[in-house]
Amino acid sequence: MTKGLTVALDDSRKVTIATIARLAGVSVPTVSRVINGRSDVSPQTRERVEELLTRHGYRRRPPSMRASSGLVDLVFNDLDSPWAVEIIRGVEDVAHAAGIGTVVSAIHRRSSSAKQWLDNMRTRSTEGVIFVTSTLEPPLQAELRRLNIPVVIVDPAGVPPQEAPTIGATNWVGSLRATEYLLGLGHRRIGFIAGPPQLMCSRARLDGYRAALETAGLGVDDKLIYQGNFYHEGGFAGGSHLLRLPDPPTAIFASSDQMALGVYEAVRQRGLRVPDDISVVGFDDLPEVRWCSPPLTTVRQPLAEMGLLAARTVLRLAQGERIESPRVELATELIVRDSAAPLHA
Amino acid sequence: MTKGLTVALDDSRKVTIATIARLAGVSVPTVSRVINGRSDVSPQTRERVEELLTRHGYRRRPPSMRASSGLVDLVFNDLDSPWAVEIIRGVEDVAHAAGIGTVVSAIHRRSSSAKQWLDNMRTRSTEGVIFVTSTLEPPLQAELRRLNIPVVIVDPAGVPPQEAPTIGATNWVGSLRATEYLLGLGHRRIGFIAGPPQLMCSRARLDGYRAALETAGLGVDDKLIYQGNFYHEGGFAGGSHLLRLPDPPTAIFASSDQMALGVYEAVRQRGLRVPDDISVVGFDDLPEVRWCSPPLTTVRQPLAEMGLLAARTVLRLAQGERIESPRVELATELIVRDSAAPLHA
Repeated sequence: MTKGLTVALDDSRKVTIATIARLAGVSVPTVSRVINGRSDVSPQTRERVEELLTRHGYRRRPPSMRASSGLVDLVFNDLDSPWAVEIIRGVEDVAHAAGIGTVVSAIHRRSSSAKQWLDNMRTRSTEGVIFVTSTLEPPLQAELRRLNIPVVIVDPAGVPPQEAPTIGATNWVGSLRATEYLLGLGHRRIGFIAGPPQLMCSRARLDGYRAALETAGLGVDDKLIYQGNFYHEGGFAGGSHLLRLPDPPTAIFASSDQMALGVYEAVRQRGLRVPDDISVVGFDDLPEVRWCSPPLTTVRQPLAEMGLLAARTVLRLAQGERIESPRVELATELIVRDSAAPLHA
Repeated sequence: MTKGLTVALDDSRKVTIATIARLAGVSVPTVSRVINGRSDVSPQTRERVEELLTRHGYRRRPPSMRASSGLVDLVFNDLDSPWAVEIIRGVEDVAHAAGIGTVVSAIHRRSSSAKQWLDNMRTRSTEGVIFVTSTLEPPLQAELRRLNIPVVIVDPAGVPPQEAPTIGATNWVGSLRATEYLLGLGHRRIGFIAGPPQLMCSRARLDGYRAALETAGLGVDDKLIYQGNFYHEGGFAGGSHLLRLPDPPTAIFASSDQMALGVYEAVRQRGLRVPDDISVVGFDDLPEVRWCSPPLTTVRQPLAEMGLLAARTVLRLAQGERIESPRVELATELIVRDSAAPLHA
C-alpha cells in the first residue's frame, strides 16, 4: 500500500513520505505509523508529523482509488484451538458482507512459517491482517509496518499492550460474576483452578475470584487455589487434587472450559456426580460445552463478536480511518446451565 | 484473467477478443464479461457471443499458463459445523506448504450469499474451490464450470455422485467395525440411533450396523433402531426412548458424535452411568469427544486428511492434471476410549 500514498507539497508538486520524515527528523516508519493512527508514537512526534502533513497539504489517497485486494487475512498460531472456528465465523461474517474474502492461515509459532505466509500475502496483497495470538513476533510486526498494512490483534489471553489495536474480553469482571454466582448458591469453600500465571487473563481471572470472596467478607484459602494450564489435563489434575483435600471444596471454578471438562472427568473417576456432589463452573463458553453432561455453567467470552469487531476495525484502518481506542474489551457474560447447584443445607 | 485469453480461429491464426466483439456487434468488455461468466450480460448477448466463440474454436488458455492467484477457496454452508475447523486445518496445511492462501467462506445455503462469494472470488481469482457441503447448487456449479475453475467436494455426508471429484469416508465399514466391537464386548441388544435417511452416509452407517448383527447370526430388532437427525437433541431423544424400552439395550451406537453426547445426557438424567450401566459408541471423532466424560469411543472420520486430499486434488486440477477417480473414500477407524465396557455377566 505504500506505493499508493503520496504527499502533496502543493498542487503542482508531490513528495514522498521520506520527505516528511526528513523534515520531521524521524524515520519513514514513524511517519507511516502516524498516518495509520497507530498508538506507538510519542504524542510529541505525532503532533510534529501531523503538523507537517497538514502544512504541506498532505492528502491521503482516497481509499476508493486504491486497488482493493478483496482480501483480509486472519492468522492463527494453530488451528487446533477450540476458539478458532468461533473467531473465523465472526471475521468471515463482516468480510463476506463487505464482499471481501477471508484468508485463514496458521503459522505454528515458527518464523519459517510466518515468512511463508508473508511471501504469499505479498504476492496477492491484503486489506489488513487480524492476528489471533498471545504475542506478535517483533520481526513480523516490523515487516507489516514496513508494508504499511493495518494490523488488529484478537487476544483472548489479554497480553499487555502491543503495537496494534487489540480486542479482548473482560476477564476480571467475568470471574467476579461467576464466583458471586457460586456464593449466591450458598457455597463457601470454592476451589479455583488458575491458568498460566504469565498470561494477563489468568491473573485477571484469579483476581476476580479473590475480589468476589473478599467482597463477601470471606478470606481466600490458598489451599483451594490450584495452578493449572488452561488445558484438560490441568483441570483433571486440579480437580483430582482439590477433591483429595481433607476438607474439599463444594464447588470448583475452573478458569477455562477445557479445565472444567477435566474437573468433570476427575469427579467421574471418583464415582461422584456434577452438580449433585460438587458444582463446577468454567470460563470461555466453547461451542461444545452446552452439549457436555451436564451442560456447563460458564463465563462466555464473545469470541465471534471479537472476530466481528476485529474485522470491522481492520477494514476501517484499511480505509484510512483513525480508531478511538488501542484496546477494546468486550463484555463477558455468565451462562447458567446445569453444572452448579445450591449447596446442600 | 482476461489478459491471458486469446481466441484461436484455427491453428495458424489467432484473433483477439476484439474480433469476436466486432463479429458479435458488441464491445470488447462485453465479450470479456461473457468469457469470464459474469452475470451482467443479457441472455441474448451472452448466447450470441458464446455461439461465436464456439464456432471459431475458442480455446481457453490451459490452467497451468494462467497467472497464479495465490489463493484457494474453501466454502462451507455454515461455519457452525463442528467439522469445520478440522477440514480448514487440512486444507490450510497443504495450501500453506504450496505458498497459497486459503480463503474460507460461508454461504449459508442462500443464493444471494453464494452470488456475493462469486463476485468477490471473480475480482481476485482463485486456483480452485473446495466445497464442504452436501449438495452443490446447479447454478453455482454451472457458473464455476463456465469460469473453468476446478472444483472438489469434501463430503462427509456421502451424497450421490456430483459433477466434481468428491472426497468422503468409508461410512459402512466404520459402522460395521463399531458394531463388531460392541458384539465382541458381549453386547447382544445394541441400540442404533440413525441419521437423516435422505443422506447416503446415514444409510451406509445403518447398513453397516445391520450387516455386523447379521454376520454374527443375530436378527435385527427394529425396536432398537431410533430415527435421529445427527444433532444432540436427536441423540438425547433417541437415548431417552431406548432407555425407556421394557427390555432396553445394553449398548447404544449413536451414528454421530453429537448424538452420542445426547445419549450421555439421557443416561445422566436417568441417574445411570456410562459405561457402567450402558455402553455408548459414536461416529465422527470430533476433537472435543476425547475430553468428554467418559472419553468417547467412536469411529473416526479423517476430516483433516479429507481436507488435505481435497486441497491436493484441487491444486492438481489447477495445474491441468487429470485425476484418477471421481470419488475417493478415506478409511474410517475405530478409536477405543472409555465409553464402552464388557457386558456384565
